[in-house]
Amino acid sequence: MILHSFVKSDETMFESFAVYLREGAGLSDEELDLVKQVTIEKKLRKRQYLLQEGDVAHYNCFVAKGCLRLYRIGKDGSEHILRFAVENWWMSDYESYNSGDPAKGNIDAIEDSELLLIKKQDFDALTNTIAKFRLFRERLEARSYDASLKRIMSNISETAEERYVNFIKSYPQFYSRVPLHMVASFLGVSRETLSRVRLQYSTNK
Amino acid sequence: MILHSFVKSDETMFESFAVYLREGAGLSDEELDLVKQVTIEKKLRKRQYLLQEGDVAHYNCFVAKGCLRLYRIGKDGSEHILRFAVENWWMSDYESYNSGDPAKGNIDAIEDSELLLIKKQDFDALTNTIAKFRLFRERLEARSYDASLKRIMSNISETAEERYVNFIKSYPQFYSRVPLHMVASFLGVSRETLSRVRLQYSTNK
Repeated sequence: MILHSFVKSDETMFESFAVYLREGAGLSDEELDLVKQVTIEKKLRKRQYLLQEGDVAHYNCFVAKGCLRLYRIGKDGSEHILRFAVENWWMSDYESYNSGDPAKGNIDAIEDSELLLIKKQDFDALTNTIAKFRLFRERLEARSYDASLKRIMSNISETAEERYVNFIKSYPQFYSRVPLHMVASFLGVSRETLSRVRLQYSTNK
Repeated sequence: MILHSFVKSDETMFESFAVYLREGAGLSDEELDLVKQVTIEKKLRKRQYLLQEGDVAHYNCFVAKGCLRLYRIGKDGSEHILRFAVENWWMSDYESYNSGDPAKGNIDAIEDSELLLIKKQDFDALTNTIAKFRLFRERLEARSYDASLKRIMSNISETAEERYVNFIKSYPQFYSRVPLHMVASFLGVSRETLSRVRLQYSTNK
């Protein structure tokens, strides 16, 4: 009975990845088979780590269920959140993943999560073998770069209130699931500032 | 006489690009010939535009000489600088370049500049034809993404003084060539804050 439910759950994990790859990248069943051969399934309970500072990020990680964050520890010991990822998002410490150097960041689960991991060399091999996968990867990378530019623009040009409002609008899927102190950390404002800004926003709305 | 000096200058422009591509990407003379066939040379005088908001960024641009900036106009009419580029850097509004949508940014010259432009479809064709060029492009894109992450980390975790000091250390090549109000705009601090921070830094040093 336990075995049965375990197998069933795993099949569901890859199936949601397959749906994503069929719709997003247009992969065929044969191509999905190639992906499946190199995909590793992993479950994380809330607060468990996927990666710790100093380790090398060998895997690109697809979130089938749950929510992860990538954060770095600042000089004063505080946590600074660089990325969140929920269902159908990818996650890794890409600086370490690309360079092979030890990661400066930590990745942990904010909720119980179901993940699909692909080793870097397997991911590269897939993009070399499957043209559609390569195009898909290039689109993902361009989108990721655009998002980082948008965030930089927000950081250098907006008030704390504008950043908060933009965050709610741009990432409603995070906002309802992520504790407030993490939202503050992601936006680069203090908890006190975020509380003040939220109060103002809800009054003005 | 004028024609002669024009031709000579152009040869120097492509030559510095060729040196960069030989050293950085390991291209052979034959491969450099393919690049040369699709490269357009362009000179900009200080304050001239390479791209204006609303136009589509069709070109990836290599800076052979000079200094460019990419900036957006905020709601209040102020300029927010997203990128600088000096010799051996690439520049475009990559959001528009990747999507084909009208650019939200403007690119202009901070100094008289010499540029080498490659049209997007030619750039894509080069990366499809020359494997070394593709690897080189992937390295560039990874580095660009890492730099944007570093800047986000700086924005959300550092004080104005730390950001200023990091900027001087990370980009000495910009700092000496870019007017102070543009440094302030890049860092997302007011001119008054930057002046105060510079004074403190020079006193404490």
